[in-house]
Amino acid sequence: MYSPLIQQLLDALRCLPGVGAKTAQRMAFYLLERDRRGGETLVTALQNALQKIGQCERCRMLAETSLCEICSKASRDQALICVVESPADVVAVEDSGSYRGRYFVLMGRLSPLDGIGPDELGTHMFEEQIAGGEIREIILATSATVGGEATAGYLATLAHNHGVTVTKIAHGVPVGGELEYVDSNTLSRAIAARRVVDVD
Amino acid sequence: MYSPLIQQLLDALRCLPGVGAKTAQRMAFYLLERDRRGGETLVTALQNALQKIGQCERCRMLAETSLCEICSKASRDQALICVVESPADVVAVEDSGSYRGRYFVLMGRLSPLDGIGPDELGTHMFEEQIAGGEIREIILATSATVGGEATAGYLATLAHNHGVTVTKIAHGVPVGGELEYVDSNTLSRAIAARRVVDVD
Repeated sequence: MYSPLIQQLLDALRCLPGVGAKTAQRMAFYLLERDRRGGETLVTALQNALQKIGQCERCRMLAETSLCEICSKASRDQALICVVESPADVVAVEDSGSYRGRYFVLMGRLSPLDGIGPDELGTHMFEEQIAGGEIREIILATSATVGGEATAGYLATLAHNHGVTVTKIAHGVPVGGELEYVDSNTLSRAIAARRVVDVD
Repeated sequence: MYSPLIQQLLDALRCLPGVGAKTAQRMAFYLLERDRRGGETLVTALQNALQKIGQCERCRMLAETSLCEICSKASRDQALICVVESPADVVAVEDSGSYRGRYFVLMGRLSPLDGIGPDELGTHMFEEQIAGGEIREIILATSATVGGEATAGYLATLAHNHGVTVTKIAHGVPVGGELEYVDSNTLSRAIAARRVVDVD
């Protein structure tokens, strides 16, 4: 049905997350019919990104320089490390605008069935950094999944062994969320983590 | 927030239809973290497609050879032309498996406000073909929109002037569609186009 080159383009587009047969066709035809220049820009941008973007030597964030922007910024508190699972999580925390320390990106979470153990998550590198004695606090911000919790537990033990304070971001009812729509796991966590209200 | 190369990749991905900021980030991080090989395949496939895919000289379909596969196939009825608006429409008609003629792809529809007149739709090329005297029938399969109907009307006049039979695909209630969910325009068309039921 499609010519060979179009078929190859469709197959290649389907490697993108969330892109199936129909979307791939829509994208391919759109680029070929209406936005060839956009297509060329995409080729160049993707080629450059794939060639030049590696990982930050310190926090494993995607970066085109040996140290990422956050790790190399003097204004960030380098003694405070927030541990997250992915680059997208770094973006999310940065978006919140409430954090001025640096990060450590695991690029995954413990998942023995998929062959992802501590080595794959760069915990060796993480341990070297906390062993240096310059880290004041580790903030664990892994996901609230079984794998994420296991990872958090593992890293907490590591940090504890080196005498570094370990904290974990709070889980609870989302701001603006209505109680009746919050799932029961979140709600039971929110109740367990309740705090005394100070009345002046 | 993003490094320059990642920002460029995000901007480039957003030229794809249906891709906004969040999806672009998801795609970029996915390719960089987990599927660099897929990204490279995409670069090559897109580059090849942009360089080598042009339009068929006869029907204006996207093709990497001067004549597309359908136009160059002897088994297709070359005296029957189905006029459609886009390559995606060709794919849809081919998918139905009920058509053995060839196509003429307008690559748009009449839209004076956007500067799309008969010349942009290749009607000159279309007229040359029907003037040749080898065409038996023109099937109009433009969209049921104002612009699509105007285009169909224009082409019908052209074909009529050259003494070629012009037909139009039927509009009506979709097969498997429940009457109560069919919009009133479609329904009034379906009633107007009713046919006598033969009882043997």
